[in-house]
Amino acid sequence: MDTLTIIAIVSIATAGLSIGIGVIGPALGQGRAVSSALTALAQQPDAASTITRTLFVGLAMIESIAIYCFVISIILIFANPFWNHAIAQVGGH
Amino acid sequence: MDTLTIIAIVSIATAGLSIGIGVIGPALGQGRAVSSALTALAQQPDAASTITRTLFVGLAMIESIAIYCFVISIILIFANPFWNHAIAQVGGH
Amino acid sequence: MDTLTIIAIVSIATAGLSIGIGVIGPALGQGRAVSSALTALAQQPDAASTITRTLFVGLAMIESIAIYCFVISIILIFANPFWNHAIAQVGGH
Amino acid sequence: MDTLTIIAIVSIATAGLSIGIGVIGPALGQGRAVSSALTALAQQPDAASTITRTLFVGLAMIESIAIYCFVISIILIFANPFWNHAIAQVGGH
Amino acid sequence: MDTLTIIAIVSIATAGLSIGIGVIGPALGQGRAVSSALTALAQQPDAASTITRTLFVGLAMIESIAIYCFVISIILIFANPFWNHAIAQVGGH
Amino acid sequence: MDTLTIIAIVSIATAGLSIGIGVIGPALGQGRAVSSALTALAQQPDAASTITRTLFVGLAMIESIAIYCFVISIILIFANPFWNHAIAQVGGH
Amino acid sequence: MDTLTIIAIVSIATAGLSIGIGVIGPALGQGRAVSSALTALAQQPDAASTITRTLFVGLAMIESIAIYCFVISIILIFANPFWNHAIAQVGGH
Amino acid sequence: MDTLTIIAIVSIATAGLSIGIGVIGPALGQGRAVSSALTALAQQPDAASTITRTLFVGLAMIESIAIYCFVISIILIFANPFWNHAIAQVGGH
Amino acid sequence: MDTLTIIAIVSIATAGLSIGIGVIGPALGQGRAVSSALTALAQQPDAASTITRTLFVGLAMIESIAIYCFVISIILIFANPFWNHAIAQVGGH
Amino acid sequence: MDTLTIIAIVSIATAGLSIGIGVIGPALGQGRAVSSALTALAQQPDAASTITRTLFVGLAMIESIAIYCFVISIILIFANPFWNHAIAQVGGH
Amino acid sequence: MDTLTIIAIVSIATAGLSIGIGVIGPALGQGRAVSSALTALAQQPDAASTITRTLFVGLAMIESIAIYCFVISIILIFANPFWNHAIAQVGGH
Amino acid sequence: MDTLTIIAIVSIATAGLSIGIGVIGPALGQGRAVSSALTALAQQPDAASTITRTLFVGLAMIESIAIYCFVISIILIFANPFWNHAIAQVGGH
Amino acid sequence: MDTLTIIAIVSIATAGLSIGIGVIGPALGQGRAVSSALTALAQQPDAASTITRTLFVGLAMIESIAIYCFVISIILIFANPFWNHAIAQVGGH
Amino acid sequence: MDTLTIIAIVSIATAGLSIGIGVIGPALGQGRAVSSALTALAQQPDAASTITRTLFVGLAMIESIAIYCFVISIILIFANPFWNHAIAQVGGH
Repeated sequence: MDTLTIIAIVSIATAGLSIGIGVIGPALGQGRAVSSALTALAQQPDAASTITRTLFVGLAMIESIAIYCFVISIILIFANPFWNHAIAQVGGH
Repeated sequence: MDTLTIIAIVSIATAGLSIGIGVIGPALGQGRAVSSALTALAQQPDAASTITRTLFVGLAMIESIAIYCFVISIILIFANPFWNHAIAQVGGH
Repeated sequence: MDTLTIIAIVSIATAGLSIGIGVIGPALGQGRAVSSALTALAQQPDAASTITRTLFVGLAMIESIAIYCFVISIILIFANPFWNHAIAQVGGH
Repeated sequence: MDTLTIIAIVSIATAGLSIGIGVIGPALGQGRAVSSALTALAQQPDAASTITRTLFVGLAMIESIAIYCFVISIILIFANPFWNHAIAQVGGH
Repeated sequence: MDTLTIIAIVSIATAGLSIGIGVIGPALGQGRAVSSALTALAQQPDAASTITRTLFVGLAMIESIAIYCFVISIILIFANPFWNHAIAQVGGH
Repeated sequence: MDTLTIIAIVSIATAGLSIGIGVIGPALGQGRAVSSALTALAQQPDAASTITRTLFVGLAMIESIAIYCFVISIILIFANPFWNHAIAQVGGH
Repeated sequence: MDTLTIIAIVSIATAGLSIGIGVIGPALGQGRAVSSALTALAQQPDAASTITRTLFVGLAMIESIAIYCFVISIILIFANPFWNHAIAQVGGH
Repeated sequence: MDTLTIIAIVSIATAGLSIGIGVIGPALGQGRAVSSALTALAQQPDAASTITRTLFVGLAMIESIAIYCFVISIILIFANPFWNHAIAQVGGH
Repeated sequence: MDTLTIIAIVSIATAGLSIGIGVIGPALGQGRAVSSALTALAQQPDAASTITRTLFVGLAMIESIAIYCFVISIILIFANPFWNHAIAQVGGH
Repeated sequence: MDTLTIIAIVSIATAGLSIGIGVIGPALGQGRAVSSALTALAQQPDAASTITRTLFVGLAMIESIAIYCFVISIILIFANPFWNHAIAQVGGH
Repeated sequence: MDTLTIIAIVSIATAGLSIGIGVIGPALGQGRAVSSALTALAQQPDAASTITRTLFVGLAMIESIAIYCFVISIILIFANPFWNHAIAQVGGH
Repeated sequence: MDTLTIIAIVSIATAGLSIGIGVIGPALGQGRAVSSALTALAQQPDAASTITRTLFVGLAMIESIAIYCFVISIILIFANPFWNHAIAQVGGH
Repeated sequence: MDTLTIIAIVSIATAGLSIGIGVIGPALGQGRAVSSALTALAQQPDAASTITRTLFVGLAMIESIAIYCFVISIILIFANPFWNHAIAQVGGH
Repeated sequence: MDTLTIIAIVSIATAGLSIGIGVIGPALGQGRAVSSALTALAQQPDAASTITRTLFVGLAMIESIAIYCFVISIILIFANPFWNHAIAQVGGH
């Protein structure tokens, strides 16, 4: 296997696995947050605006963590510096 | 095995595994959110509109995380840049 | 092993494993949602229509996640682009 | 090992494992749903018809997920396109 | 190892493992369902007929999932199409 | 290793492991069912006959799942079709 | 390694592991059952005879599952048909 | 490695591991049973004789499961039929 | 494989895995914190300002831990000292 | 490696691992039993003598399980029959 | 592979994995602490100053543990004594 | 590798791992026991002498299990009979 | 690979992994302790000084365990006796 | 690799892993004990002296278990008898 192929397959496998494993936490965390928001709404409907506002801030924070994973995956597929260097080395492009 | 074959099999395996592992979290999170929504509805039927609206926002957020995984899987199968580069290299197509 | 065989076995194994692992989450999530719906119905029979409507929306969302997995499995078995390319390459068909 | 043998053993192993792993989730989910239904019945016997109807819809949804797994297993054993292609290639049959 | 032997050992191992892993879920699910039924009976003895009827429907649904596994195991041992094809190929029988 | 030896060791290992793994679920499920029955009896001694009848039906259902495993193990040891075929092939016996 | 040695070591390892793994479930299940019986006795001492009778039936059922494992282990050590066949083949004894 | 050595090391490793893994379940089960007995005693000191009698029967049942493991371990070390056969074969002793 | 390739693939794999595994904890922790904040808001709407302020401090602390992981990943991809040294060594660039 | 060395290292590794894994269960079980005893004492100080007597019987039973493991470890180190046989064979000593 | 390359890849992999695994604990611990602080605030708003002060001390202690991991990772990447020694040995730099 | 080296490394690895794994159980068990003692003291300060006495007996029992592990580790390092035999064999010392 | 390189990479990997794994326990333990302190403060604000003093002693004890890990890691990186011996042996430095 | 190197790397790896794994249990156990002490203090401030005294005895017992691990690690690094023997053998020093 030449250099390009090796870098390609490692990038593919890593991108897939890191997003695959990485969504477990954020999804469970968001599920928990949403779940508590709904319980809270049922308990105190008058505080709906504060609750939903806090919920959205929290979901955004957790989503940001999931996006770290997504960003790394996308970087590894579409903006991989090691791949770019190898391409430049080979002279192809 | 030539380069194309290796990239193909790694892409196939990664696409399948990342979606396989990646749906566990979102599915459990959504199950939890729906579950709380139903409990909340039973407790406070008058707040049904607020509860269902918050639920749908939450489900959409969690679904978006599941879709990150799906997108990576689909990219690896149908729009794989490493595969495209290898195809271009071989000159086939 | 020639190229076709390798792609075939990786596709078979990935399709089976991704659906095998991927149904765990949705099934547990749906079980939880249905379970809460039934508890809610027992607690507040008057809200039955709202509860069942919310339940069906939630089940549909979770089912959609399970279907992502199923779709990837079916694509890998019946519409695998890498397999099609390899078949075209070999000239068979 | 020739091509046919390899495809055969991978298909056998994948079919068995995917159904083996895949039934864990649906079985636990259904167990949970049935369990809640029974608790609900004990709590609110008057709502028996709504509860059992909702239960059956839920069980059907979860059963459908288990059937995705079963379908993939059966396809891999009895309607495997890769096996059919390999058989056609060899010319046997 | 010749083709027949390989297919035989993979079939044996897969049949055993898939039933071994596959009974965990249904057994736990049924245990949970029965457990809830008994609690429900203790709580509401008057609803015994509805409860036991719902329990039996639920147990049947979960048993059906366990039987999917058992069917695949039995097919792999006694009606394995790959084995039959290999036997036919060898000309023995 | 000749064919007979290979089939023998795979059969032995599979038989032992499938029963070893397979009893975990049923044993835990039965433990849970018995446990609930006893709690139910303590709570509602008057319903003893209904409770024990339902318990025995449930234990029988779970036992049947454990027996699927046991049957596969016994088939692999004493009525293994692949072993019988191999014996017939070798002509020994 | 000759045939006899291989069959011997696989039988030893399988016998030990299957009983080692297989006792986890029954022991936990019995522990749970006994635990509930004691709680039930403390709650309802008047129903002691019904409770202990139900407990012993339950323990017997769970013990029977543990004995399936023990039987397979003992068969593999002392009445192993594959070992007997191999001994007969070698002509020793 | 000659036959005797192989059988010896497999027997040693299996004996140790099967008892090592096998005591986890019984110890936890007994711990749970004793724990419930003590809670029950605190709750209902008058039923002490029934409770301790039931406890001892339960502990004996669980101990019997642990002893299955111990027996297999001891058989593998001191009364191993495969080892005896190999010793007889070699003629040493 | 030459030095550059090896360092590249190890960096890619490590970057992806460390962010993949590393987001599980922070996401779950934030989910828990948000969840408690919502419950607290429902319980004591008057303390909303103290609660949200404490929540944001807590989320920031947890986010900082997630960012440690992200920083290491980004360093490994874009500012890897070992890679830079190897590039300098090779003289390319 | 000669026979003696192999048997020695397998004995060492097995002795250490079996005691290492084997103490997890008994220690947790005893912790649970002691914990319940203390709770029971706080709840019912008058039954202290019955509670401590039952506790000591229970701890002794669980300790006996831990001792099975310890005995096997000590046998493997100081009274290993396979090692003794190998020593006798070599004639050393 | 020469010495420098080996040390480089081991340092990269270890740095990434140790921070990846190491953030799980602190993140969960901080999530728990923040969660309790919020619950405490909702319960006793008058003690807000004591609660937040204790929370910040606790978060700092837990953060310090996460920083141990981060420090080791950074040392391995930027101040690795083994790497420095190897560089000095090679004479490059 | 000569005999002495092999026995040394296996002894080192086993001693470390067995104590490493073996302290998990006792530490958790003691933590649980101490935790219950403190709860009990808070609930029933008058029974402090009985509670602390029972606690110390329990801690001693659990400590004894941890010491089994420690003893095996120390034996493997400082009084290893296999190492002594090998040293005697080599004649060194 | 020469001796120095091997010792270097094993030290790096061990240092990173031991701190990576080793912080999980202390971080969770401290999180739990802080969490209880906050709950206790909310419940009994008058005992704040006793509670915070006990908390700090507890955190210090747990921190000391985390520091054992950190010390071992730092020793392996900066004061490794095996590395020093090897350096002295080689004569370099 | 010569004898000294092998013993060195095994000692390093074992020392790090045994302390890494070994602190999980004690840290969690101490966290639990401290947590209960705080809850107890909040519930019964008058018993503060008994509670803290019992807590410190308990923490000391658990700390002693963590120290067993630390001692073994330190022995393996600084007072390793196998290493000393090997050094003496080589004659170096």
